[in-house]
Amino acid sequence: MKFVKNDQTAVFALGGLGEIGKNTYGVQFQDEIILIDAGIKFPEDELLGIDYVIPDYTYLVKNVDKIKGLFITHGHEDHIGGIPYLLRQVNVPIYGGKLAIGLIKNKLEEHGLLRTAKLNVIKEDDLIKFRKTSVTFFRTTHSIPDSYGIVVKTPPGNVVHTGDFKFDFTPVGEPANLTKMAEIGKEGVLCLLSDSTNSEVPNFTMSERRVGDSIHDIFRKVDGRIIFATFASNIHRLQQVIEAAVLHGRKVAIFGRSMESSIQIGQELGYIQAPKETFIEPNQINRLPANEVTILCTGSQGEPMAALSRIAGGTHRQIQIQPGDTVVFSSSPIPGNTISVNRTINLLFRAGADVIHGSLNDIHTSGHGGQEEQKLMLRLMKPKFFMPIHGEFRMQKMHASLAVDCGVEAEHCYIMDNGEVLALSSDTASVAGKIPSGNVYIDGSGIGDIGNIVLRDRRILSEEGLVIVVVSINMKDFKIASGPDLISRGFVYMRESGDLINEAQNLITKHLNILLEKKTTQWSEIKNEVTDTLAPFLYEKTKRRPMILPIIMEV
Amino acid sequence: MKFVKNDQTAVFALGGLGEIGKNTYGVQFQDEIILIDAGIKFPEDELLGIDYVIPDYTYLVKNVDKIKGLFITHGHEDHIGGIPYLLRQVNVPIYGGKLAIGLIKNKLEEHGLLRTAKLNVIKEDDLIKFRKTSVTFFRTTHSIPDSYGIVVKTPPGNVVHTGDFKFDFTPVGEPANLTKMAEIGKEGVLCLLSDSTNSEVPNFTMSERRVGDSIHDIFRKVDGRIIFATFASNIHRLQQVIEAAVLHGRKVAIFGRSMESSIQIGQELGYIQAPKETFIEPNQINRLPANEVTILCTGSQGEPMAALSRIAGGTHRQIQIQPGDTVVFSSSPIPGNTISVNRTINLLFRAGADVIHGSLNDIHTSGHGGQEEQKLMLRLMKPKFFMPIHGEFRMQKMHASLAVDCGVEAEHCYIMDNGEVLALSSDTASVAGKIPSGNVYIDGSGIGDIGNIVLRDRRILSEEGLVIVVVSINMKDFKIASGPDLISRGFVYMRESGDLINEAQNLITKHLNILLEKKTTQWSEIKNEVTDTLAPFLYEKTKRRPMILPIIMEV
Repeated sequence: MKFVKNDQTAVFALGGLGEIGKNTYGVQFQDEIILIDAGIKFPEDELLGIDYVIPDYTYLVKNVDKIKGLFITHGHEDHIGGIPYLLRQVNVPIYGGKLAIGLIKNKLEEHGLLRTAKLNVIKEDDLIKFRKTSVTFFRTTHSIPDSYGIVVKTPPGNVVHTGDFKFDFTPVGEPANLTKMAEIGKEGVLCLLSDSTNSEVPNFTMSERRVGDSIHDIFRKVDGRIIFATFASNIHRLQQVIEAAVLHGRKVAIFGRSMESSIQIGQELGYIQAPKETFIEPNQINRLPANEVTILCTGSQGEPMAALSRIAGGTHRQIQIQPGDTVVFSSSPIPGNTISVNRTINLLFRAGADVIHGSLNDIHTSGHGGQEEQKLMLRLMKPKFFMPIHGEFRMQKMHASLAVDCGVEAEHCYIMDNGEVLALSSDTASVAGKIPSGNVYIDGSGIGDIGNIVLRDRRILSEEGLVIVVVSINMKDFKIASGPDLISRGFVYMRESGDLINEAQNLITKHLNILLEKKTTQWSEIKNEVTDTLAPFLYEKTKRRPMILPIIMEV
Repeated sequence: MKFVKNDQTAVFALGGLGEIGKNTYGVQFQDEIILIDAGIKFPEDELLGIDYVIPDYTYLVKNVDKIKGLFITHGHEDHIGGIPYLLRQVNVPIYGGKLAIGLIKNKLEEHGLLRTAKLNVIKEDDLIKFRKTSVTFFRTTHSIPDSYGIVVKTPPGNVVHTGDFKFDFTPVGEPANLTKMAEIGKEGVLCLLSDSTNSEVPNFTMSERRVGDSIHDIFRKVDGRIIFATFASNIHRLQQVIEAAVLHGRKVAIFGRSMESSIQIGQELGYIQAPKETFIEPNQINRLPANEVTILCTGSQGEPMAALSRIAGGTHRQIQIQPGDTVVFSSSPIPGNTISVNRTINLLFRAGADVIHGSLNDIHTSGHGGQEEQKLMLRLMKPKFFMPIHGEFRMQKMHASLAVDCGVEAEHCYIMDNGEVLALSSDTASVAGKIPSGNVYIDGSGIGDIGNIVLRDRRILSEEGLVIVVVSINMKDFKIASGPDLISRGFVYMRESGDLINEAQNLITKHLNILLEKKTTQWSEIKNEVTDTLAPFLYEKTKRRPMILPIIMEV
């Protein structure tokens, strides 16, 4: 790395700084690069039709021979979703906890990449040694089992990446390994990269155990069917629901593809435990009395195609809402999903269900630690340098100020952007340069073939629609041979706009005839004349600016 | 009204039930209709390109001779925004408080409708008498001055409409008239229509006075410029900011068209009071020291074209963020705006400003009462029948359960839909029928010319783009004369997709030639062949389903 000295360690992110998602980090010492996570990001609304966003992998492709491995903190999509796209370009060995590796296997199988992938399951105390660097782990708590922080040992010092974490002292699975964290801190942390997601949230995040209590309360009180929607990846939450069902003599039916696959992998790995007869087939739910049925399903974010949305809309093949049903949203809506979640809740109420949702009911808790937990991490790790990661700029900024409160020097805090490289020696740090980063859009099977022009076109088309003008011109005698014909999509009801269309046709004909009298042979001139005539006319009549596409044919 | 008896009063809504916005209510006794409010709704994201939504006014147009007047509760857009569209169809007299009428005047002037409008300013104790019905008012507190509840006196009994309200006992303007409300309750309320917006919020809504304290705290502590963003219509909030500015020796500059007009109308009507020299011109801000500047601006919802968004993005002509600036968001984001508000906050932080936002800072309070205030209204009015209005179904449902808690019989609560008619006699009520209601979309200057097909096309275009296939066919010898040519918008970068295009052209040519050998003369068959050939090919290659438009020309 040209702007980093030979005795310095470089730390950089290709994604995950100043944004939620597409987490992809790198730690490089000389010719050894340790990658941490390879996530995707779900696009915001203005990225019309885009399915996912991944980072620009240019730097990794150019330095493929230096990459020692990709180390995964945990199995959420914003940390593993980019792997298939990355592996197609650089087939690096992957290391992760058993659940993360299980989920990655499924993903690679879907993409037809499983055969060539090099997957390694790690345990917390493994020390993966390379020539100059080595990697070890520490167990954290998060909203998916088997989450780890990662320690990259490099000659100038240790770089610690927390992954996503909270400190749940009464978790459903194993607790965070405070002891190992304290040891890592004692050994010395040159630079800490820590999760900023909830840095604007005061206090401690509620324990998963408290959610379990609320789930038990619901199962105790409700007589009808319980329809329980949550994130499929929150396997501890699923286990709590299944435990409550068993305790109250209910069976569990699973709906939604990702929920089915979570239950399956959770059982295989031992995170989900229940008597065999607990699970019933979807078609069995109508044979049981209501108070013996639990339906565990996807759709807690109001996703239009998920099981719960189809239940709410009355279009689910097997489940119709019946009086006495209680629907539980064990989730909180991600910004951007609020409206569709609200719509789903209203539909369920209208259909006659009781709906339990919202923070007042203690039926959900975040996977990310609040300010006190971020400070606990800082006090344990006692880093010399600090880089807040994961989250928007405001969250990084707040997290940096928490670090200062916990004894990190203000000028040792680096709020960085994707692509920026932090060069660390054993006692200095500086932002040394920039490598390619940025967004690559995935739409369907296309990677990076959608850019700003295509998106701009989609935006215009979506807001104003399209008018196509087809004209044939006889270039021998410079006369209109046929047309102009107007075809529109997404503009107005053409059938009810006959006058508007006629007027537009007459206007274009008039202007084209004038132009053709000058015996122009420039296609572009003819096209521009059509657009320049029609655009102001349509704007005056409708106050809309549809995209205008002139199609001129020579006869 | 055919399904209401001669001695019954009909109550209905054209908008405002099961939704937020486009509030439009009617109370009818025999041949007298009292309208209450005529609002618009801002469209949700999937209504691509739609500016506003208004209700279907068919029933009003048919019964124009019966309408005695349109009574306005307050001057918010979701209560007055539909007036220009309504007046074009039925020019009824309008009654409202002085601020509402002032705002309506501005609106009608813009639409060129002021001359013919019949506007009347009411005072709380006015009794507007018609032959069989009469109307009086009671003062409420809300996030805009001059808000009223409306009592419609009809022979079977009094129908009370609360408008939007909270009970702010220490408001900035005048308090709610509890005495008159108690009297109305004592006289007897046949049916109460009450604001359900915050029925899921426990307790009492914070007083505007507490927001004033927080504003004073900020002005006391901050040394740099204060950039204060809030809703332009919250004139009491503006007055509080201006008072704080005067107290701390700051001038006030106004940015944003709606903010300017609010300040002007607020001063004219006496709601905004400040020494003349308080206000400075936009171009004077850079001549004053930072600690003497207050900038009052629009954009607290992250609206892309508003002053604050342009300041945050660095594209504002007069204001660049400088170190020491403090930006205050005196607002809470409406669902759907969260992402753009967050983006604005991040941009401001990045530009170096300090940003105060969020509920933790007590710098905003809702205009709608929480559960305790809704119960207070119910206890004051003691209605025989109850109809929760304003708000989503879940909020109406919760409000009905609060009414039951306050002594209304459960079977006397009517959770209704827009268009449904409640028929009230002095001691019975029933949902008696349905009149036309529904959404009319306004896009540009078009009213109702956008329907579901146009919106569906916009959605497809926005997510997948468009491919146009142009082919000329010689119908004498059944041969392709030119083309097929492919033109796309919003699909892929055509320049970088040469292979894809070539393959597609060859495939279409092959299939058309086979078809033409059969000497078909059916245009639709040729068009379908193009679509049926291209669609699966493109899906296979790109996993996208663009709209395909075949344009077949005869030569």
